[in-house]
Amino acid sequence: MSLIIVGSMAYDAIETPFGKTDRIVGGSATYAAYAASNFVQPIFQVSIVGNDFSQDEIKELEKRGVDLKGVEIVPDKKSFFWSGRYHLDMNTRDTLVTDLNVLADFNPHLPESYQGSEFLMLGNLMPGIQLSVINQLRQRPKLIVMDTMNFWMETALEGLKEVLKKVDLLMVNDSEARQLGGEYSLVKAAKTIMRMGPSYLIIKKGEHGALLFHGNEVFFAPALPLEEVFDPTGAGDTFAGGFMGHIAHTKDISFENMKTAIIVGSAMASFCVEKFGATRLKEVNREDIQNRIHQFVDLVNFDISLV
Amino acid sequence: MSLIIVGSMAYDAIETPFGKTDRIVGGSATYAAYAASNFVQPIFQVSIVGNDFSQDEIKELEKRGVDLKGVEIVPDKKSFFWSGRYHLDMNTRDTLVTDLNVLADFNPHLPESYQGSEFLMLGNLMPGIQLSVINQLRQRPKLIVMDTMNFWMETALEGLKEVLKKVDLLMVNDSEARQLGGEYSLVKAAKTIMRMGPSYLIIKKGEHGALLFHGNEVFFAPALPLEEVFDPTGAGDTFAGGFMGHIAHTKDISFENMKTAIIVGSAMASFCVEKFGATRLKEVNREDIQNRIHQFVDLVNFDISLV
Repeated sequence: MSLIIVGSMAYDAIETPFGKTDRIVGGSATYAAYAASNFVQPIFQVSIVGNDFSQDEIKELEKRGVDLKGVEIVPDKKSFFWSGRYHLDMNTRDTLVTDLNVLADFNPHLPESYQGSEFLMLGNLMPGIQLSVINQLRQRPKLIVMDTMNFWMETALEGLKEVLKKVDLLMVNDSEARQLGGEYSLVKAAKTIMRMGPSYLIIKKGEHGALLFHGNEVFFAPALPLEEVFDPTGAGDTFAGGFMGHIAHTKDISFENMKTAIIVGSAMASFCVEKFGATRLKEVNREDIQNRIHQFVDLVNFDISLV
Repeated sequence: MSLIIVGSMAYDAIETPFGKTDRIVGGSATYAAYAASNFVQPIFQVSIVGNDFSQDEIKELEKRGVDLKGVEIVPDKKSFFWSGRYHLDMNTRDTLVTDLNVLADFNPHLPESYQGSEFLMLGNLMPGIQLSVINQLRQRPKLIVMDTMNFWMETALEGLKEVLKKVDLLMVNDSEARQLGGEYSLVKAAKTIMRMGPSYLIIKKGEHGALLFHGNEVFFAPALPLEEVFDPTGAGDTFAGGFMGHIAHTKDISFENMKTAIIVGSAMASFCVEKFGATRLKEVNREDIQNRIHQFVDLVNFDISLV
């Protein structure tokens, strides 16, 4: 039940209406690994960091069964750095700083020990990098999932379309789905996107939940209504990590099990937003996660026999 | 299982990105009655119309068990008229014309035969009118549900607060809940609003579904993902009508049954938006409704045993 996670490991500085933090550890692969490690170990991490990346963080990840052989450490450069400020609605944000640093040269080489992995999560990266990872795997994983963003649709659409042909499931947010699918209706956009390659599509709608499409089937998972969203950074990556962790743990890639995986991902994301960065993800234990998942059951459960 | 519905019966002219219609029958009480009449009869309608209101529409409503004794017909005036244009997102709209006409003088007098009704739905009207209807009922209904809007929060807040003290359930949309509760977080806004009187609160989020709050409990019902929303006019009133119809039919005002009622309301609303005005609501039969409700079951159902 081996899972490869490819993405950024980075530093973020975040401002929200509730507070402000200086450099804290972030990055799509970091969030995904913290979430997934609750369900499956080892996790084969693929990323790149600079000389400034915290040794404590590396130890913490290793303790959770995250294998960092695939994480390149560049001795004379700094890690990717992003800084942003969230608006009051917590759904929109301004990017203040983007320092690519080591990420500008990211050209991953998969360690030989990662070969044969059954599950692959491609975090949001330049499509060429995502394709390179797929091509390096001698045996195709059972399930390849990818994230992407509007930036690549605008600057690298052809490359993005190449990757889409090779993956099973695409995860994007609602505005990205509308942009990629060229339709305002998410149902229509989903159909167009699935014709580009992936037979599964997850559309993330933040506080409004997530939709899973496959053929003519659709499943909806709500987000947990929270009193306070403290910091939404990493929620999408945490969702992806929880989703992949559950899939890799169960080794079941049926539509039915993907529904459950979305609930697991949503539960993990609901923890993520409770504190800055990945702080909360490091605190929760198996019991907390089980309790949170049961809150989702209560949230949507109704008695059809009453109709 | 008698249900009183109070609200407007009107004419609308609607423009959407998909088309345009001249005067068609609308109004909160019209939509609510069409929806509720699938589940419960008679419906005791309370409204006011002018000399222009269609006799065919009156016959159609009567055929569906809607008792119109409480609908005042003003011989020398016209019915309430609203005209609006929807934006591409179908969530926002511009009002082009609001001609109050007969609605300016609406001062309902409940027919004696309406006394003893067990369920009361107060559509969005001036709070004073809503209060007057409550006060006219010699026996308090088992469940009083009300709708309102931001306009009354801005122009008649004190009156609105008086009504809120006397109702069991308030239905508003998300921006109205934020305005009334004075909190951006819907969970926090819900708690504030429930302290104003209603022990149940439904927050309608349009294409993003609806939330039901009661004490510390919360239930979420999705909206059905549709290829096309043709005309959202009346969707909220149709939702209210389906909700009340199910409650009045089952006579069960438990939280558990309210969950099911929200699904019924959501199913009815999903029909409403498929065509202009109430057109689609007049076409669907009991089997269509059952099938639609089962689509909601499929939409949110997942297997927790897989976790």
